[in-house]
Amino acid sequence: MPVTDQAFVTLATNDAYCHGALVLGQSLRNHRTTRMLAILITPQVSSAMRTALCTIFDSVVDVNEIDSNDVVHLALLKRLELGVTFTKLHCWTLTQYSKCVFMDADTLVLCNIDELFDREELSAAPDSGWPDCFNSGVFVFQPSIKTFNLLLQFASEHGSFDGGDQGLLNMFFSNWATKDISKHLPFIYNLSSSAIYSYAPAFQHFGQDAKVVHFLGPAKPWNYKYNPQTRTVTEDGSGSVSTSQLSFLELWWKIYSSSILPLLNKMEKSSESKIQKEEADIIEDEDKHESENPSFSNSLPVSAQKEQVSEMLGSLLDELSAKDCLQKAECNFDINIAEPSKSSAASSPQSIFQPSAEIDIVTCSASELSIQPKPEEPSAEDERRKWEEGHIDYLGKDAFENIQKKLDSFLL
Amino acid sequence: MPVTDQAFVTLATNDAYCHGALVLGQSLRNHRTTRMLAILITPQVSSAMRTALCTIFDSVVDVNEIDSNDVVHLALLKRLELGVTFTKLHCWTLTQYSKCVFMDADTLVLCNIDELFDREELSAAPDSGWPDCFNSGVFVFQPSIKTFNLLLQFASEHGSFDGGDQGLLNMFFSNWATKDISKHLPFIYNLSSSAIYSYAPAFQHFGQDAKVVHFLGPAKPWNYKYNPQTRTVTEDGSGSVSTSQLSFLELWWKIYSSSILPLLNKMEKSSESKIQKEEADIIEDEDKHESENPSFSNSLPVSAQKEQVSEMLGSLLDELSAKDCLQKAECNFDINIAEPSKSSAASSPQSIFQPSAEIDIVTCSASELSIQPKPEEPSAEDERRKWEEGHIDYLGKDAFENIQKKLDSFLL
Repeated sequence: MPVTDQAFVTLATNDAYCHGALVLGQSLRNHRTTRMLAILITPQVSSAMRTALCTIFDSVVDVNEIDSNDVVHLALLKRLELGVTFTKLHCWTLTQYSKCVFMDADTLVLCNIDELFDREELSAAPDSGWPDCFNSGVFVFQPSIKTFNLLLQFASEHGSFDGGDQGLLNMFFSNWATKDISKHLPFIYNLSSSAIYSYAPAFQHFGQDAKVVHFLGPAKPWNYKYNPQTRTVTEDGSGSVSTSQLSFLELWWKIYSSSILPLLNKMEKSSESKIQKEEADIIEDEDKHESENPSFSNSLPVSAQKEQVSEMLGSLLDELSAKDCLQKAECNFDINIAEPSKSSAASSPQSIFQPSAEIDIVTCSASELSIQPKPEEPSAEDERRKWEEGHIDYLGKDAFENIQKKLDSFLL
Repeated sequence: MPVTDQAFVTLATNDAYCHGALVLGQSLRNHRTTRMLAILITPQVSSAMRTALCTIFDSVVDVNEIDSNDVVHLALLKRLELGVTFTKLHCWTLTQYSKCVFMDADTLVLCNIDELFDREELSAAPDSGWPDCFNSGVFVFQPSIKTFNLLLQFASEHGSFDGGDQGLLNMFFSNWATKDISKHLPFIYNLSSSAIYSYAPAFQHFGQDAKVVHFLGPAKPWNYKYNPQTRTVTEDGSGSVSTSQLSFLELWWKIYSSSILPLLNKMEKSSESKIQKEEADIIEDEDKHESENPSFSNSLPVSAQKEQVSEMLGSLLDELSAKDCLQKAECNFDINIAEPSKSSAASSPQSIFQPSAEIDIVTCSASELSIQPKPEEPSAEDERRKWEEGHIDYLGKDAFENIQKKLDSFLL
């Protein structure tokens, strides 16, 4: 029986993290959670991806990005993108739920973890880097506008020691390390992939009980490549990956290829036919467009369309192996598979989606699946940061001639 | 007022770790602990080093080595030497004390930490590798023969998941992570040097309150080189060292060069003159030797000789900088300082001690202090391990001719 006033909550601030959120949501569904699934998304998330999220999450909530603007502290972590994780604070506004478990989009659930709802705010597992801090990738909280406002006020007054949400939340819930042992979630509820290396015998001893794996660090599962025939993950070139970490990455990709990829493909085809229909309709009645396409414009409530798609996919979810997925894909999902023997420049990995600049490109050959972010124009801020960090494009946009032109434009 | 029924306890299983134990003991004395200092040593510790330990520790206790013989598990950590840390269990036999704080010889105290005696067994700080385990480098315990026997029995029945004392103690005190928050020592009482890197902003925020630093990993402070003129540590070549870690290493070497080096030198000179005297005496009366030299043969109680040396060194301990030490060394401690301009093969770093094969060689030039382990004959067990690990001395002892000879000896 579903518990409608409690939810697992995650966050995606771009399409790349949506891939993670979709796999996380699917892993929670696979393990038959009785709680609702909610996701916070920022405007950077494409509408196509938003539609896909609607098929797995009960609630897709638009939020504005809160940036910590704390470049000095973030630079310490060399993770400038962390600032946007302040957006996470919005989870406290989900007061339609009495209690929630927040989970980062780069986590993966390995079994049913509904027992986490027995814990109180703020329960979290220790961070393996500085274990008197909790890791804010998985935590139990109680939505409250009062708490949300106190958090924002605290952030504006004290900042965050790491420039991200983890530093802020640890400063706000500052007695976590010393006050109440029941608020210490076991580490197996937020097992950072780095712990596999740093104390290998402990991982070998306790790792078999892992309930949630957290792909910490800059290399996320969606940055790797996956061979669906051998069901193995190809390293991303950033260094060696242990067997244990590979098995978690492979599990992520198994769920992705069996459940998420068909879903995205289905969404894309549906979107294409919808666009064709809209192009016809628009001549007749431009005003009707928005109401005909509710899943694109309104996150709540669960759309009937979503339930249909979920039902259709439901029977596939548990049984489909990556190979099954590909076999079916040839018939049903129209994934373009290149035969290894025929591989050439012409038949090299092709995009499943060639829709627009809106969605990430998922390339798929017989030997490799990979997710490539859609090309983005760098922002003026990014350009400035790169310049200040010494990454200067001497031969391109930062060439002497171009700078000279700019200076001339001021002088003329 | 000293509390004689409570003690800080450490362990040294060889002379290298004795350098660490001496610095640890000195750091506790510098911060005016009111508790006793005890050290467990195994037969590998040289008698010269034992004498030095007697000047800083109130109690030097000989123990036999307990080896876990658990090569499979230790191999996981690639730290085969950890097996001997089972010897640590002997600390529970120190029943002359009602409560103790165990500290690894590679820890360094940064302020008075006597408040640790307010905690109960088993209190310890989380391990940064797997934070639901405590790190067994610093822990509060209650000596008890019953507990000691239970630990040995547990070890024989269950082994240790990491082959060392930490795995065993975490299995034995298995509810540490979930039962009683008061048994969680703050991480700043056992700050692993690796935490400086792994979560730099947390170190910057909380690190200023550090009370004990733990030089985890294979590179120990005594493996580095120290420039006493610039008071800086030279990297050991094993990788980059952060500024924060360097400052801890420099503090270790500052204490070593100002307090321990003069002490070892003094001990050595005293030992030399004693040997000369003994050589004279031995002709007269061989039986008198042992009683004249109590600090060499008996660890308890504190010898009068130790107190005299301590008193003599006492006035130096707080004030002496490394430079002062070297200046005084030239007059009093007979350290051979090579002028940088005169450095040549002849005047290159010379040993302070050239006594015997017994003690580590401390080399000292104007620009560098370093500790080099005394050359050791490898044991048969070491040889076998090296062979099994594939480190085969093809041209030396493992040359075909030698193996042929061995085989022939069986066949003949």
